[in-house]
Order: sequence, then structure tokens, then C-alpha cells
Amino acid sequence: MAAELTAHDLIARHRPTLDQALEAIRTRAYWSPHPEHPKAYGERGSLDAAAGKAAFDAVLGTRVDLGQPGTDDWVGGEVSPYGVELGVTYPHADLDVLLPAMKAGQRAWRDAGAETRAVVCLEILKRISDRTHEFAHAVMHTSGQAFMMALQAGGPHAQDRGLEAVAYAYVEQVRTPDTAEWTKPQGKRDPLALTKRFTPVPRGIGLVIGCNTFPTWNGYPGLFASLATGNAVLVKPHPRAVLPLALTVRVAREVLTEAGFDPNLVALAAERPGEGIAKTLATRPEIRIIDYTGSTSFGDWLEANARQAQVYTEKAGVNTVVVESTDDYKGMLSNLAFSLSLYSGQMCTTPQNLLIPRDGVRTDEGHKTFDEVTADLARAVDGLLGDDARANALLGAIVNPDVKARLEAAAGLGEVALASREITNPEFPGAVVRTPVIVKMDGARKFWEGAADDEAAYMSECFGPVSFAVAVDSVADAVELLRRTVREKGAMTVGAYTTDPEAERAVEEVCLEEAAQLSLNLTGGVYVNQTAAFSDFHGSGGNPAANAALTDGAFVANRFRVVEVRRDS
Amino acid sequence: MAAELTAHDLIARHRPTLDQALEAIRTRAYWSPHPEHPKAYGERGSLDAAAGKAAFDAVLGTRVDLGQPGTDDWVGGEVSPYGVELGVTYPHADLDVLLPAMKAGQRAWRDAGAETRAVVCLEILKRISDRTHEFAHAVMHTSGQAFMMALQAGGPHAQDRGLEAVAYAYVEQVRTPDTAEWTKPQGKRDPLALTKRFTPVPRGIGLVIGCNTFPTWNGYPGLFASLATGNAVLVKPHPRAVLPLALTVRVAREVLTEAGFDPNLVALAAERPGEGIAKTLATRPEIRIIDYTGSTSFGDWLEANARQAQVYTEKAGVNTVVVESTDDYKGMLSNLAFSLSLYSGQMCTTPQNLLIPRDGVRTDEGHKTFDEVTADLARAVDGLLGDDARANALLGAIVNPDVKARLEAAAGLGEVALASREITNPEFPGAVVRTPVIVKMDGARKFWEGAADDEAAYMSECFGPVSFAVAVDSVADAVELLRRTVREKGAMTVGAYTTDPEAERAVEEVCLEEAAQLSLNLTGGVYVNQTAAFSDFHGSGGNPAANAALTDGAFVANRFRVVEVRRDS
Repeated sequence: MAAELTAHDLIARHRPTLDQALEAIRTRAYWSPHPEHPKAYGERGSLDAAAGKAAFDAVLGTRVDLGQPGTDDWVGGEVSPYGVELGVTYPHADLDVLLPAMKAGQRAWRDAGAETRAVVCLEILKRISDRTHEFAHAVMHTSGQAFMMALQAGGPHAQDRGLEAVAYAYVEQVRTPDTAEWTKPQGKRDPLALTKRFTPVPRGIGLVIGCNTFPTWNGYPGLFASLATGNAVLVKPHPRAVLPLALTVRVAREVLTEAGFDPNLVALAAERPGEGIAKTLATRPEIRIIDYTGSTSFGDWLEANARQAQVYTEKAGVNTVVVESTDDYKGMLSNLAFSLSLYSGQMCTTPQNLLIPRDGVRTDEGHKTFDEVTADLARAVDGLLGDDARANALLGAIVNPDVKARLEAAAGLGEVALASREITNPEFPGAVVRTPVIVKMDGARKFWEGAADDEAAYMSECFGPVSFAVAVDSVADAVELLRRTVREKGAMTVGAYTTDPEAERAVEEVCLEEAAQLSLNLTGGVYVNQTAAFSDFHGSGGNPAANAALTDGAFVANRFRVVEVRRDS
Repeated sequence: MAAELTAHDLIARHRPTLDQALEAIRTRAYWSPHPEHPKAYGERGSLDAAAGKAAFDAVLGTRVDLGQPGTDDWVGGEVSPYGVELGVTYPHADLDVLLPAMKAGQRAWRDAGAETRAVVCLEILKRISDRTHEFAHAVMHTSGQAFMMALQAGGPHAQDRGLEAVAYAYVEQVRTPDTAEWTKPQGKRDPLALTKRFTPVPRGIGLVIGCNTFPTWNGYPGLFASLATGNAVLVKPHPRAVLPLALTVRVAREVLTEAGFDPNLVALAAERPGEGIAKTLATRPEIRIIDYTGSTSFGDWLEANARQAQVYTEKAGVNTVVVESTDDYKGMLSNLAFSLSLYSGQMCTTPQNLLIPRDGVRTDEGHKTFDEVTADLARAVDGLLGDDARANALLGAIVNPDVKARLEAAAGLGEVALASREITNPEFPGAVVRTPVIVKMDGARKFWEGAADDEAAYMSECFGPVSFAVAVDSVADAVELLRRTVREKGAMTVGAYTTDPEAERAVEEVCLEEAAQLSLNLTGGVYVNQTAAFSDFHGSGGNPAANAALTDGAFVANRFRVVEVRRDS
């Protein structure tokens, strides 16, 4: 049967986009082919807001049949953080049938070559992009993100990260030419001459272990990096966030089929409640690559136990912002208030510890004591979230009961600078919506050298809308505590506000030595917890929060190997 | 104090070579800046044969004082496989002094940037190249390689591999620009604008664990890859092969000093007999990268236990040559005879198992039975090594008593097709010189499915001048046994002789699926056990013989991380 989508057509359609992506990762200037504005959709055959909502509604209460071999059951049970039962079920796999089936198409996928694989991936991303509105609802009702964020972070930003991974994977594979003629002079004798052929070969099956909060954004880099390098990919979603990845797998299988490849190159592994199949999968010999986002404990377990696989982990960290001085006090406060509030702080990049000198900071509005800064920040958060509609649009919903419990316990950890309050979501009365809490902590060196209670609190990741205003004795102590936090706990982000070149250099040096990504003096519309694909690295892969960065050469280079066949010319 | 060697001068001196190396790894055509012919040296300020020998003689019986901090003792005891006691001692380090001292210069080395680091590395390689004759003797009298091989493999070929690693490391670091201006349109509002700076930062200290047989060739890739990416490097040589790496460290320290950097960025860790410091070093928190060549058991230990480090291993494997048919029987036999004889088969790339169909092979000289092929190959080896002078020049010396013991035991494993014989080395009467043994094995599927004695022999690595002529029932069985061997035991090389396109495809498919490097129908002056830097990959990193290939992007990309500092524009 001839493929409906030929490689030739796909190259014609997507090569210009691939080339732009390649240029973007080289210059790291702003670029994205995926529109952020909801109204941009509805053209080019894509779903507009109404059609996207209708598509989402149509899937609710249904069985998502992906046509996967070895399906022995149907499982599901997602309940939206907004209170809606999704009622969707997914195939449960007999791994002894599914995994071998996933290997069957691997030879043809390998032989297709890097460019064809890249444009097939771009076609998958294009079709996902066309359904951004549908995905937005799926992400919203699994992660608890507010609709606009679910659309942007779960749609175009996730698609950007997927495309970025494809670009890195492509360029890595074509660094070595397909063939080479090697001729070595031998003085007066005939030269030695060999003809060499080089083939990128996959490692096997890549396993993507999805997370609850950003199923697509955190899932796409590994999925597309592994697929573009010739591997099959098995997606094991978080049990609370299956739908966005199930829809992704469905699109991928459709495109693979139309392009003449085996759809089983991409498959879903949904699980029964409490089944815990990630551990089983992670040590199967067929699984040679694992991409994981989630808790430190399971990430560490994977790194220690999945010895047959390349393991890429994003785990927990403790993110710090050092507040030393600023020439834009209002800008700083509003920027920080937004960072703490966005998606109820349920981002791996949200600041947790704000290190503020006990004797205060210099600002363009005069000297501000620790208590003044803390109070002003609390007011800024209150102001930002004062209107319930705006608060709902920013906060989204608390993703699960664990986060709610942590938030409620946080008020007991110290003096509360900003109390959390409940917000009602009129559209979804079942949603748990809470504003952030800010708790004061004493970060005196005498305590952190003696492991006081406060330290136990602020040196642990408290994922969710909880931050600590930590009073430190000096800028030097702030820098030292920053270093210790990154080294021992890891950090996805570091922020700093300072007008003092020496303090800036000290913070920067810590970030360089401990490999943490630093945002300096952000007072406008960019926030420490946001990164842009093609330009910003997400994580560094060099501190305990993550062993890989999204996306760089190291993220893709070991997902395939190059096999050389040489013969006398 | 001003540096004697400025970055500017070094760039002027070495940038053209770096550019040529970058071009070579891209095209993979033949290239080397390091001459192979002994007479090429003696110009450009380099040592000629006599001066190199004199330099080597001068170091014998001396203390190699590298001026390292924390030196608490002097250790040594190398005895040349040619029977000469070297009498050289080396610094023994107090690690609690040396390791912190190695970190002191890291910030300046990091801040120097990728290009300066690359040209400093090239200056180190240039000075080593100038002393190739001296290194040749040092390699000869530690590895047991014959002089010409020690000069070529231990000199220019090792320097090529070091330069190749520098080229990969450089290009990997400059994939991300130093700075970027990021401007994101916001419709009618002002665009968002950030200034971003990207800095490659090292992981820490790289540990190079050297091997007995190729101290420089296997040591340089990791050493230069780590150093060029900003790390300090601690070299832990094999206790029997310290001198070549001690001389290397000395040159590196000299160049670093002259270029204004801390010499402690490169240091030596020699050990007392039986001290086993590799285990201690490998789990020190300061050690963040490990390059290792040696036994599978210790390589596996490193991968499992040195969790704080990136671990690159080259371990043992079982290399196979499938003999199916040939249109150049004489060429095949002489090519194989050379491969089995070179350096007494003490190469990780030497073929061990020759899989030959029991009912024989088609050749341009008619059909040859299994026994005929085996006998003809034995005759070809005999012919090659019939003259003692030539035999000594090809075989070198048996590197250590373990290899000798294995060789002597091999004759008892089956019917001997070619017996090993002793050769006298008139110049070095203490040298243990032996010709290879070939033992016949029955590779019938019924045996390898039942684990017969023969299988236990040929499925284990028998490092040294031992090979097995394995009779298989069919080409299909040969291909299947090849697959099983690579998958279970790993392989650095695979060879095949066939004129049948179908057999060729089958062997090639196994190599693609199991990630093994394949040489097809070599009958001339290139041998399956030789690879050329800039063109051939050494190992694949995709089968159990090695988790890394020399050299590709994956070998360098995770030795550093990129830290981004961004601020509002």
C-alpha cells in the first residue's frame, strides 16, 4: 500500500520550519511557529475555540481506542482538578505483546533516515497544533491550569519544546555524513582507500513517564527526541493526566500510519489505579531510554535501577530569589507577585525561598526593611489577585490533595506574611482555588549551621503556592545559602535583584559553579519561572534538580549510536 | 606575571589546525597533522630518533617530580615487557590536598572560554608530538608494543584521537552563542526583550583511568575532552604503564603554566602496588567525570557505583569475523593473518572468533572446506611471522603474565590449528614473544543452545594472541551467533567476508541492530583492528563492550553544562 503522505511531500511541507528551528537554536533569538493567541486558531484547517471545546466534550465519557496490540483491559478514572469526572478510559497493555509489537516497525523507521523522521515528527506536531484548543481543555482538566495557561503552556509552548527536540535530534544525526571516501597516501605506493557508510541507529524503545502538572510540556521533549532519533516511544502518563498524552499518541499513530510506518512506533501505557507500572517498565530490557519528570525519590530510583537505559530526569529542587537591592521596587514586587501566583506556584520553576537581608534593601523608593519588603510583596500579591475573575485566570486550580495539604500546613511553619485564601470559581464550583501563602523564616547562619526548624522547612521543596521570606544576616550569607541550596537540593531557576555589581558577580559565580540558570532583575513581562524554547535552557542538568537540560546536545546525542560499515574502495 | 604564551598567540598558531580538524570530523575524509614516519621527526624543533631515545634513557632511574601539591611519597616499579626495569618513581598524592588544589584554577580555566582552552590543548599535543620518539620508547616499554607500533599508535594516532576530542569538545561548546538578544513581539505593546549570556561550565574534575596496553591512545580522548570542556583532569595510570601518562601530565602542566593557568588543572595519581586507588578516586565527590579502559568487571563496578560522575567505559568484548565467501582468498588470508598477529592480538579490536561454515566457503581459488580455510590461515600466519626479525617487529612482547597464561591454556581448549611458538628477541632477551594460537571450535547450534564446553571458551574474551576457528552449520547460524555474541558479550569490531549480497545484508543488519562497527571484505592494507581518528568510530557505545564511542557528540556533550544568565534588555 502506498503511503498517503510521502517523505517527499512532508519534506516540502516542513523542511522550511525545520530550517528555521535549526537557525533558532543556533542564534537563540526569539522564534516560534506556534501562535500563542487563542484567536489565531481556526484558520489553516485548525480548530477554533468552539470546535476545540466540542472536540474535548466529545471525548468525555468515551473509550480512547488507539488500536494497540495486546490491549487486555480498559482503564481510567481521571477527575479534573476543576471537579469534573472525565469518564475516559484508555487501553491497558499486556507488555509481553505490546513491547515486541513496538519493535516490529523499527527497522523501516531507522532506514527512513534523519530527515524523514524529522518531518514526520513535524507533521505530528502540526496536527497537534491544529488541535491546540482541544488540547487546552485536556491539559486544563488534568493539570488544573487555568484555560489560557493550559492553552499556551500545554499548546504552543509544549509544541515548541517538541520541535526544539526534533531540531537538536536532526542536527545531531547529520553531523556525521551518510558516506565518506577515505584515502590515505602511502608515499610511492598506492593510497589506502576505504568507502564508509554511517547510519544512525536507535537504542530501542524510549519510555516517557509523564507528570501531572505539565503532561505535554514536560512530555514532548523526550517523546520527540527519542522518536526523531529512530526509537519507538512508549508513553506512560501520570494517572491523573492521561488524556493530553493519549490524544498525542493518537495523533502520532495516525501520522505514522499515513506516512507508511508502523503506528506501534508510538504507544500508550495507561495503568490501573495503584498498579505502579513505571517500575516494571523502567527495568524491561526493551526500554533503553527513559524520560521522567516527577519526584526526586522516584527519579533517584530510576537513575540507580534502570541500568539498561539512558535516564533523563527532572526532579524536585528548591528555587531561590536573592533580593539585595533594586532600582525598580514596584517592578520587582509585581514581577515576583506574578511568579508566585501563576498556576498556584505549581511549577518546578516557581521561586520558593526569597532571601532578604534582615536589615533591609536599598530601593528607588528608599531603604526598605525586611518586614517592609515582605509586607509590600504580600500587598502586591493581594493586588494582583484581588479580583476573583483575574485570580481564577492566574491561579488555576490546586492539582491534587497533596498540594492542598502542604499549603494548609505551611501556615503553621512560621509567622505568616501573607495568608492564603479560598477563591470560588463560578464556572467550576468543584475547583479548589487558593491564593499563595508567604511565611517568614529566620535564615541566620547560626541556625542553618545548627539545623533549626526553619531550615528544615525552607530547605525542602514545598511544591505549590508556598514561599518563604527568609531573613539573612548579610548578602554574603544570602549567597552562601543560595550555593548550599543549589548544591544540596538542586534548583531549576535562580533569581536575583541587585544594583550592586559585586553582589551580582557573587550570585552569578555561584550559579556558574553550581550550574543553575539565573534571571537577573526581572521587572517586566518575563518571569523567572518561564523559559522559551529555542532560546532558554530549562534546567541545567548540572545540579540535583535535573540530570538533563531542555534541550541541548547532551539531551539527544546518546539516544542513538552511529554504526559504520567500511570496505575497500 | 604575564603569561609567556598568550591566548592570542596560541590562537594564531593553532586555529588553522583546529579548523582542519573540525572539517575532518564533518567530512570524515582522511586527515592527520601528526606524521607516522619516524624520519618525519627531527624537524620543527622536534626530537629525532636519537634525541628521543636519549630523552627516554635520561628519565630511566629518576624521580619524575611534577611539582604537585600534596605529594606524600614516591612510588613506581614498572618493568618493561621487554625485561628492563624502568626504575622511575612518581608522586603519590594525598588526595585531600591534591583534589582541592586542582579546583583552585578552575574558574580562570572556565572563564578563558572554549577557543582558548582548545588552543592550549593543541599546544600540549604539539609538544607531545615533538617528543614522539621519546613517547614511543615509553609506550614500548610499558605496553610491550614493538617500537614502530609504539611510535605510531602511541604517538601520532594517540595525538590524533586527542585532537579529535578537542575538536568535538570545541564545536559542542560553541553550538550555543555567548550572547543572544531575545525580542518577543507583543502586538501593539512594546516587545518583551531580554539579553542572555551563555557560559559553558565544567562539571568538576575528570578522572582518567589508564590501561596497560594503550596508555596514550586510550587515555588521550577522555583527558582532552574533559580538559577542553573546562574541567580539571586527574590521570590515574595503570601501575604497569605510568611513564607515558606521567610525561603527558608533565607537558600539560608546563603548557598550562606558560599560558598563565594553574598547572594543577592536570595532575597524576600514581599508586603503591596493590593500593587500588581507582575505587577510592572514582567515588570522591570532586570527581564528576570518569574515563576508563579495562576489564568488564571494574567497568561495570564504575557504572554502578560512581553515581556522582559521568562514566565513559571501554570494557571487554568478543570480536567476530564471519567468513562466508571471498573473491580474494589470498588477500583475505593475509589480511586476517596480520590482524591476528599485530601486537600479539593484545588489542581490544583484534578478532577472536572466526565463524566459518562447516561445509566450507566459496573462493576465487575454488571451494575450501572448513579445515582447508583453517589450515590456510595458519599457513598465512606462519608465513607472515616466519622471519624472526619481522615477527618481533609485528608481535611486540606479551604485556603481562596473565596474557601468557591464557595463551598457554588455550591450546588445551580444542584441536589446535596453529600452535603458538616462542620467538627470541635478540635486542631484549627478557621479552616474552609468542606467535598466535588458533584453536578449532564446534559452533553447532545444538551446542550453543546447550552450553557446551566449546561455547564457554569462544563466548568469553580471551585477550591476547588466541583466536578460535568456529565451525558453524550455516551462514544463518553464523549470523545468529554473531548477534548473540555482540548482544551478550559486546564487540569493538566485527568483520565479514562475503560476496553474497544476501549474506552481506544479514551481517550488516545484525551490526545495525546490535550497534557494532563492521569492516567488510578487507583484503588490503587496512585491518579490522585499526581505526583512524577523524573518520572511524572506535566502538559504538551501543553494545556491552563500551558505553561510549571515540569520538562523537555524546562523548563530549555531558562533560560541561551551559549556564544562562538573562536580564531585561
